Amino acid sequence: MITLNTKLVGLLGYPLTFTFSPTMHNSTFEHLGLDNFYLPIEVGKEGLEDVLKGIRRMNFIGCNVTKPNKVRVLRYLDEIDELASKIGAVNTVKIEDGKLIGYNTDGYGYVESLKTIIGEVTGKKFVLLGSGGAGRAIAFTLASEGAEKILIFDKATECGEKVATEINAGVKHCAEYISLSESNLKKAIEESDVIINATGAGMIPNIDVTPLDKCLFKPGMIASDITYNPMKTRFLKEAEEMGCVTHNGVGMLIHQGAKAFEIWTGIKAPVEHMSKTVTEIIESLNAK
Amino acid sequence: MITLNTKLVGLLGYPLTFTFSPTMHNSTFEHLGLDNFYLPIEVGKEGLEDVLKGIRRMNFIGCNVTKPNKVRVLRYLDEIDELASKIGAVNTVKIEDGKLIGYNTDGYGYVESLKTIIGEVTGKKFVLLGSGGAGRAIAFTLASEGAEKILIFDKATECGEKVATEINAGVKHCAEYISLSESNLKKAIEESDVIINATGAGMIPNIDVTPLDKCLFKPGMIASDITYNPMKTRFLKEAEEMGCVTHNGVGMLIHQGAKAFEIWTGIKAPVEHMSKTVTEIIESLNAK
Repeated sequence: MITLNTKLVGLLGYPLTFTFSPTMHNSTFEHLGLDNFYLPIEVGKEGLEDVLKGIRRMNFIGCNVTKPNKVRVLRYLDEIDELASKIGAVNTVKIEDGKLIGYNTDGYGYVESLKTIIGEVTGKKFVLLGSGGAGRAIAFTLASEGAEKILIFDKATECGEKVATEINAGVKHCAEYISLSESNLKKAIEESDVIINATGAGMIPNIDVTPLDKCLFKPGMIASDITYNPMKTRFLKEAEEMGCVTHNGVGMLIHQGAKAFEIWTGIKAPVEHMSKTVTEIIESLNAK
Repeated sequence: MITLNTKLVGLLGYPLTFTFSPTMHNSTFEHLGLDNFYLPIEVGKEGLEDVLKGIRRMNFIGCNVTKPNKVRVLRYLDEIDELASKIGAVNTVKIEDGKLIGYNTDGYGYVESLKTIIGEVTGKKFVLLGSGGAGRAIAFTLASEGAEKILIFDKATECGEKVATEINAGVKHCAEYISLSESNLKKAIEESDVIINATGAGMIPNIDVTPLDKCLFKPGMIASDITYNPMKTRFLKEAEEMGCVTHNGVGMLIHQGAKAFEIWTGIKAPVEHMSKTVTEIIESLNAK
């Protein structure tokens, strides 16, 4: 029951139909007996400023920010954490004394999860498809963890070039933007250990979409997708068919959420409980 | 459980510690099986504009506005209902297609409730103590229902004079502002049927306060207080001791809420259920 004392956390994005975050966080608050509530707020770029100004005056301790607001939100913040500032995208905001402070837990969450498959990041070579909010966060975090090479592909050339330039200048000289063509992709994949789909292509409801021709997967490589709904995107299904080891976005969801939880509440996140909750959501969806 | 589909209603005021409205409205939503939630939002004049701009972009269908925001809210609205505009105070806002439309259900609620004691308003004479938001609403509604005389007292002379002038010009020539003195009060009470405490004095937590010297009550007259917490203010206790018939703010609370409910939802309010809920809240408070 939400009362005057309930500390709220928002989720600001559009659309939010398929997000697991409200269930994950509310279950966690309940599990720990905290008087918090995670409230989904459907808002796009147009209303973002008004909603942020409004919730800073309300009983909110923070919010998550998701598509299409992760970059736009920067201009409305009072302070930005150094890593988030380098990444240039924010997915977590803490509201403290009426001030909005931006963080990025996407890259952390993704890499934390990927490490369970690949071990160390150091020395590994990556192909990154997509350099929007999540792609940027992942690229910066991989670079800061010692990636040997990050080869970035994006339909939006400017976007991809910008990420590579900024990583090379600000974190580690390991990033390269490569113009999108089948031969370039083939060559990049051949020399890489991991290919990451950070385009969002294949996410529900557009589950028939994939950013890569199936034939380009290299057997034995790791294919990773940031999408968690569905757990197995067309990208991952085809990667599996081609003999790749697959890694989906469920772990990223859990670990970015755990980090955000700690930023808002100052309490250590019960990662196991969060993981259990997400598994239950997925099982209930599969049962339908 | 609040989801993406839940239509929210806010209560914007400060402080909100002692309000019954969230319990009353949430119980009503649940009773009718509606996916609505009434959320208390503590905000004073300073943050009011930001909160209104924010909630118009969120999943809110409206809000109630209470102290200290009932007059200030006017400047932030897109449209104002004619009666609310005359009253110059708004307690109910409907949000429709991103537009904020203001209404006033305080006067309606109060008069609807008072009528159960006095029958018709027509031909009756009233002493009104206090001409702030609620006092203004009550004075305008009494005038529009045919009050013979409304004698207005207020420590804030300008406030009281303004109400009288506007009622006489815009509704019915029946209002008079009288400067506050014991002899003026005595004379006004002698010629009146009903005395109304709309000052808020005596409301929890300042329950020892009353706006009228006990000796000034006229035995047999009706003494009415807009406060509902406590149900029996010092004003009403002393009126009873002096042989007056008393009327408290519980009925006003229910009827203003019922009207607001109808404005937000377009559904006929279950007044009996609302009344039952408020009675239960009061009983649970008394049991403490």
